[in-house]
Amino acid sequence: MNKAYIGLGSNIFPRKFFIESALRKIALEKGITLKGRSSVYDTHPIGNSLQGRYLNSVVEVETSLGPHELLSRLLRIEKTLGRVRQGKNGPRTIDLDILLYGDRVIRDNNIAIPHPRMHERDFVIFGMNEISPMAIHPVLNMAIGDIHNKRQMKIIRTPREAHSYVSSLRQKGRRVGFVPTMGCLHEGHLSLVKKARCENDVVAISIFVNPAQFGPREDYKRYPRNFIEDKKLAKRAGVDIIFYPDTKNMYTPTHSTYVDAEDISENLCGRFRPGHFRGVATVIAKLFNIIPADNVYFGQKDAQQAFIIKRMARDLNIPVNIRILPTVREKDGLATSSRNAYLSKKERREAAVLFKSLLLAKDLIRGGERRAANIIKRMKDSINKNSSAKIEYIAIVDTAGLKDIKTLKGEVLIALAAYFGKTRLIDNSIIKVK
Amino acid sequence: MNKAYIGLGSNIFPRKFFIESALRKIALEKGITLKGRSSVYDTHPIGNSLQGRYLNSVVEVETSLGPHELLSRLLRIEKTLGRVRQGKNGPRTIDLDILLYGDRVIRDNNIAIPHPRMHERDFVIFGMNEISPMAIHPVLNMAIGDIHNKRQMKIIRTPREAHSYVSSLRQKGRRVGFVPTMGCLHEGHLSLVKKARCENDVVAISIFVNPAQFGPREDYKRYPRNFIEDKKLAKRAGVDIIFYPDTKNMYTPTHSTYVDAEDISENLCGRFRPGHFRGVATVIAKLFNIIPADNVYFGQKDAQQAFIIKRMARDLNIPVNIRILPTVREKDGLATSSRNAYLSKKERREAAVLFKSLLLAKDLIRGGERRAANIIKRMKDSINKNSSAKIEYIAIVDTAGLKDIKTLKGEVLIALAAYFGKTRLIDNSIIKVK
Repeated sequence: MNKAYIGLGSNIFPRKFFIESALRKIALEKGITLKGRSSVYDTHPIGNSLQGRYLNSVVEVETSLGPHELLSRLLRIEKTLGRVRQGKNGPRTIDLDILLYGDRVIRDNNIAIPHPRMHERDFVIFGMNEISPMAIHPVLNMAIGDIHNKRQMKIIRTPREAHSYVSSLRQKGRRVGFVPTMGCLHEGHLSLVKKARCENDVVAISIFVNPAQFGPREDYKRYPRNFIEDKKLAKRAGVDIIFYPDTKNMYTPTHSTYVDAEDISENLCGRFRPGHFRGVATVIAKLFNIIPADNVYFGQKDAQQAFIIKRMARDLNIPVNIRILPTVREKDGLATSSRNAYLSKKERREAAVLFKSLLLAKDLIRGGERRAANIIKRMKDSINKNSSAKIEYIAIVDTAGLKDIKTLKGEVLIALAAYFGKTRLIDNSIIKVK
Repeated sequence: MNKAYIGLGSNIFPRKFFIESALRKIALEKGITLKGRSSVYDTHPIGNSLQGRYLNSVVEVETSLGPHELLSRLLRIEKTLGRVRQGKNGPRTIDLDILLYGDRVIRDNNIAIPHPRMHERDFVIFGMNEISPMAIHPVLNMAIGDIHNKRQMKIIRTPREAHSYVSSLRQKGRRVGFVPTMGCLHEGHLSLVKKARCENDVVAISIFVNPAQFGPREDYKRYPRNFIEDKKLAKRAGVDIIFYPDTKNMYTPTHSTYVDAEDISENLCGRFRPGHFRGVATVIAKLFNIIPADNVYFGQKDAQQAFIIKRMARDLNIPVNIRILPTVREKDGLATSSRNAYLSKKERREAAVLFKSLLLAKDLIRGGERRAANIIKRMKDSINKNSSAKIEYIAIVDTAGLKDIKTLKGEVLIALAAYFGKTRLIDNSIIKVK
């Protein structure tokens, strides 16, 4: 049996359908066993850029077929799916290429293995790096993971340069995904980067600990910073651009314009962190202008922040698509957060109760409970069993206006903040009540 | 003697130098007399868009030369200025074309009059419309003014459509100029449009009476509106796009995000119109996102507004170039304003004192006066001689932070607001004090 990697591409709608159909057909071929598949990447067409965007994916197979026979099977599948070859860069329902076939190097009239430009194609390298970073490219004599990690990553320090660079990419038709962060990257951030990687041609992140969103008695100064490590993690995650500005390049001494998200910033964290969301909305408005992205990615963990940013983009007509992705959690359910690093061993252990209290709430609702006060009471009791915990708030609000509700109905947000020792943690859950 | 029109174009720097040199050389030719010249237009290259942007202008000449002799003189001037002909769309130090020659129609191997595509070239039609709207295009048998007024003007009602249309123009490399207005267009607005016309390929204006910038006891409801007339004026001024949204398309019922220009919005008009500049900054932030222009144009008359918008663009990294143009005045010096329409005959006559008081201030400063209080006192005395006038404020502030100053130094803004009857008028002057 030989291990081979096959690249799939489609740029005729429904693209996803053609990719999935081809995959099914490959899996059904005798002599081919599907071993793994990568994410699907949405990519700018290569060459003739008048054709539509592609979806691309990579699969790992084990096969008893020789490379020429494997290729002829793939060509047959292309044909079944209606592929008509119209010149080098014509549109295609499905495009199937053998990327690697074991460690073989084959160059004849019919076949070129390894695929001659595979190492230059981001989606091939991203896809293979997901499923098989140790696979060797026999011509370059390099592991795929090493090819991946050798991609260029640009670090930009000034707003002007970031704007002009990203604008020029947009001008060339590249789709740009953007993940704003305060650095100290963890799995939560990386899940956003991963999604951005699949949906865009270029992924930018910003690393900026924004003073405007910290209160005078908050942890601005001691907020964890680790650019060296962030750089490594970003590169491994396939980031193309890190925008890493100095504070003085973001706020002039006479800075005096702020974006206020009134109303929905008053409840929840807003009650306890006056000015926090004004600082968040202001820096995010700035970052959206500095990095004119197609898509931006935020985590659901900062639920109120996500609501406020979506509201701001709507109210100020900011032309960006905002994607809110699920909270990433540690094994015990604790939401990943840069601030988890502050926790002592005991605090860390006890902090898992936050997620458990949200599960408890879900159970109560599933059991028929609709009175917010009762649910909150039960959650409080459960959290208060932990000696290092001090609840700041637990609230159940409607997702339209983030106002406290007495009786659960429709879509509700259960949000909480609690200190474990000196460390303030937040978590939340959105629940559809029948 | 024959009347002729010549088009000038240059896209090699210094473009302005080549245009002016060619003009001088044309004026020095025997048998050619310069009669008029248009503004200079900065335009996107036609055809091969990899070449640089052009400056273009049109001149009217009277000439005793025949058309072929006129052409050969122009070719000689091109040569003197270093023009090398490199293919149809090559770059050019200077390009001189005969557009019209009297009412003659000439088509031979050397010459084509009228210039075959002159009626399709915006800068030709704009330029000729400035200097000679009655000139007849002998092939189309139409006056230039009529060709100008037949240009398409797009009226867009929704933010989404405005954004997608303007973005697509930007994507094609077109330079977009934008003049936000509240309608009821007057010479002040039209001077902004005229400038925008010269500096951009596409000119958009918005017409939107923004409720967020009117106080509860202010004139939102009775603010003058006249879209029919505005449409005519805009078209005559060469506007390409009017963005004319409904209020409900600009503010959803749950709108809750506002842009606050703190600090510099506190003094001057801000003291008397609480919330006004918050409304202005918010709607301008929205409009900048809806219409992603290269250049936006505001009048100096609303001096504090201009400062706040520039500050906002700086603080929020809004990628637009903001141009503040001088106040346009009536013959007696009154600043043009839509609100002048409210004035009774007597109020209108007396309102001229505002400008006179600013001139008085200038005179005092020129005479050595540096104490703000003295200058303000003299201005007040002068305005108060008018029985319909009621001063709201007169202030002298530094142009960095708009704070009151006691002793004049450096660049200062003298700003005032006064009621004439029920109509509130403002005016100002920026003075460099030695």
